[in-house]
Amino acid sequence: MSAEPPKAYLVCVGSELLSGQVNTHQAWLSVRLRRAGFDVIGESSLPDSVPRIRAALKRALAAADAVIVCGGLGPTFDDITREAAASALGRKLSFRPRLWKVILKRFARYHVAVPEENKRQAEVIDGAEVLPNASGSAPGQRLEFRAGGRARSLILLPGPYSEMSPIFDAVLPRLAARHARGAAAALTVRLAGVPESVADERLDPVRARHPGASFTILASGGEVSFHATARARTAAAARREIAEIREEVLAAVGRWSVGEGDETLEGALGARLRKAGLTLCVAESCTGGLLGARLTSVAGSSAWFNGGVIAYANGVKTRALGVKPSLLARHGAVSKECALAMAEGARKFAASSMAISITGIAGPGGGTKAKPVGTVHVAVSGPGRAASARALLIHGPREQVRSRAASAALVLLKETLDAL
Amino acid sequence: MSAEPPKAYLVCVGSELLSGQVNTHQAWLSVRLRRAGFDVIGESSLPDSVPRIRAALKRALAAADAVIVCGGLGPTFDDITREAAASALGRKLSFRPRLWKVILKRFARYHVAVPEENKRQAEVIDGAEVLPNASGSAPGQRLEFRAGGRARSLILLPGPYSEMSPIFDAVLPRLAARHARGAAAALTVRLAGVPESVADERLDPVRARHPGASFTILASGGEVSFHATARARTAAAARREIAEIREEVLAAVGRWSVGEGDETLEGALGARLRKAGLTLCVAESCTGGLLGARLTSVAGSSAWFNGGVIAYANGVKTRALGVKPSLLARHGAVSKECALAMAEGARKFAASSMAISITGIAGPGGGTKAKPVGTVHVAVSGPGRAASARALLIHGPREQVRSRAASAALVLLKETLDAL
Repeated sequence: MSAEPPKAYLVCVGSELLSGQVNTHQAWLSVRLRRAGFDVIGESSLPDSVPRIRAALKRALAAADAVIVCGGLGPTFDDITREAAASALGRKLSFRPRLWKVILKRFARYHVAVPEENKRQAEVIDGAEVLPNASGSAPGQRLEFRAGGRARSLILLPGPYSEMSPIFDAVLPRLAARHARGAAAALTVRLAGVPESVADERLDPVRARHPGASFTILASGGEVSFHATARARTAAAARREIAEIREEVLAAVGRWSVGEGDETLEGALGARLRKAGLTLCVAESCTGGLLGARLTSVAGSSAWFNGGVIAYANGVKTRALGVKPSLLARHGAVSKECALAMAEGARKFAASSMAISITGIAGPGGGTKAKPVGTVHVAVSGPGRAASARALLIHGPREQVRSRAASAALVLLKETLDAL
Repeated sequence: MSAEPPKAYLVCVGSELLSGQVNTHQAWLSVRLRRAGFDVIGESSLPDSVPRIRAALKRALAAADAVIVCGGLGPTFDDITREAAASALGRKLSFRPRLWKVILKRFARYHVAVPEENKRQAEVIDGAEVLPNASGSAPGQRLEFRAGGRARSLILLPGPYSEMSPIFDAVLPRLAARHARGAAAALTVRLAGVPESVADERLDPVRARHPGASFTILASGGEVSFHATARARTAAAARREIAEIREEVLAAVGRWSVGEGDETLEGALGARLRKAGLTLCVAESCTGGLLGARLTSVAGSSAWFNGGVIAYANGVKTRALGVKPSLLARHGAVSKECALAMAEGARKFAASSMAISITGIAGPGGGTKAKPVGTVHVAVSGPGRAASARALLIHGPREQVRSRAASAALVLLKETLDAL
């Protein structure tokens, strides 16, 4: 009972996107649009040029039901998205005195003078709804019209993430409702400790059983996320299908599941530690703090994370973690034995119920025939039990070895918690 | 004496780019193309669809001199860039037995069986030059032709960064030579410790004095990079102009300069420490390891970085770093006094000549009226001198507070080294 999904197209405006700035809006908006039932059929990044933006908007509006534009709504001469969009639609821009008052009020709060050029931010395309911006002075705009016998939407959003994201989240439900062909329900399951190809193969029968649903599998930094969107005539039917898919997914790959929706591996582990009343610390050699940085990226991590040691030099391993010089002499710093000793030492060092340790050769230098670049040992100790270790051989450049080592260490922590 | 620069357009192929995967190729390729004298006039991300890619390639080849395509050269059914490009050019694809032998040899080295579908990777567009891939099985392809009275190039690259980047770096000099209108020379100066708006204002006269050159200023994580490209009839003249620009840039903002070209702040600081025979360690509270992770992202950092303490819990601050409980009781953990004590303690802890410390409130919780979210203290101690501290108030979400705090700490280290 599935219907052809509505199509969305993204247009990102800003010469900086063609000069070295990474475009993170594209990924963020794509995930949300897909979860809301849209098929994202393309993205274009364009410089601050009226003719180029106008041409791209015309093409996008001909191909897609909803076109989302980010950037170019600021006050300066090179913010020309308003003009380009009005021209693409053959409509006029009008100055809205009431909107200007709202913008002035905002500036007054910050006790700053308002440059005259900011008046451009109060110009609105005829027929557009103004989308209020609580975090900045540039409001968004939303246009609804029909073309080619179909409902179309054009959404203009400011460029900064802190302004763009709340405006988009506020408008998305209405956008989805307008373009829904039937109803949609979505699911994201995050996996760790399983290669993408293995997850892919195990999930193949799930996909085959639900030909009307759409699926994406994404691998990044040693973790895998699986997205499903079900479509049906009614919301209840879509929810029913996604519940079935969820059960099948968990039956196929549930042993590697670390969370659903936006939850990260470190966030899910933190919640489990907190619930169990356990505390955690780290001892990091080749990752140099990367694992601690990931764990503390979780808001509220101080409830379960105590800290630890960046034991880069061997002297720090022996003095702070009690790794015996004889152990280092015999097995080397990159060894199972050293990883185990680091985890035991860290647990005492930071008075924690559990500890994770990582030691390895991130490269590009430092590899030998016996221990090539990418050789990594991770260990987990506690709670109330001796440490266990895992040996890894990770391919790729320095940053990939380090990020996958951190993920592998978190997977070992998860498996230790699973076995409690 | 400047000429209109040649135009480049990027096409990134892969449904994953429209499902949540961040597109980092766009930024990487843009910077390199600009440095080589190209004006990057746009980018499109497209799903694995022959008609969509064909249409985008036709448009891009009409508008740009050089079109760079990434992705879709793999062996599976959804790798359709070869077919789409051949169709856009009205040319045939031919199986190349000698190329197939090279691919088979590669697989033999890894002792894996070769799936039959891999044969597609030996299909080459008529007239194309094969660009060898040392890191994977999918070779790139390069086509040269004329259209609309101008030389055009189409470059097909595999999707994975580790394969795409060496092939592109190898082909770029020839691409630039073919499309050069006159010659180009480029410069990147990286700044830290200065707001983008201040750098921008100070660099304004430099831009005004060189109307034929092109400039970009980019801010990210508290650092600023300034890119300039000069164009002239001869390479010598372009180099002369870029040397003048370099002197003017350093006169205007040199005090904040941390490096040129691809060198990062942490890379530049590491090189200075190594040259001076100094060693460094860290004591991190709110950044939880982020600073250590940045420092150890530099290959060879073990020559000057010893490690340190992730002092997230106050117990770790007192036990490992010797921060007195009475100091914590009096000033709190987020204070200048605590940052100074952490830096002094870390230097002893990791037996290093210098130490950096960070303590602060990253949010979203934990702020008070006196110490709101974003309050951060950083300190640097050594070599052979007492610690000095700096207080910061950083706006933005948790991750921004943390990354800017790490940058600010590195800037304080730089200033300390400047003053030696």
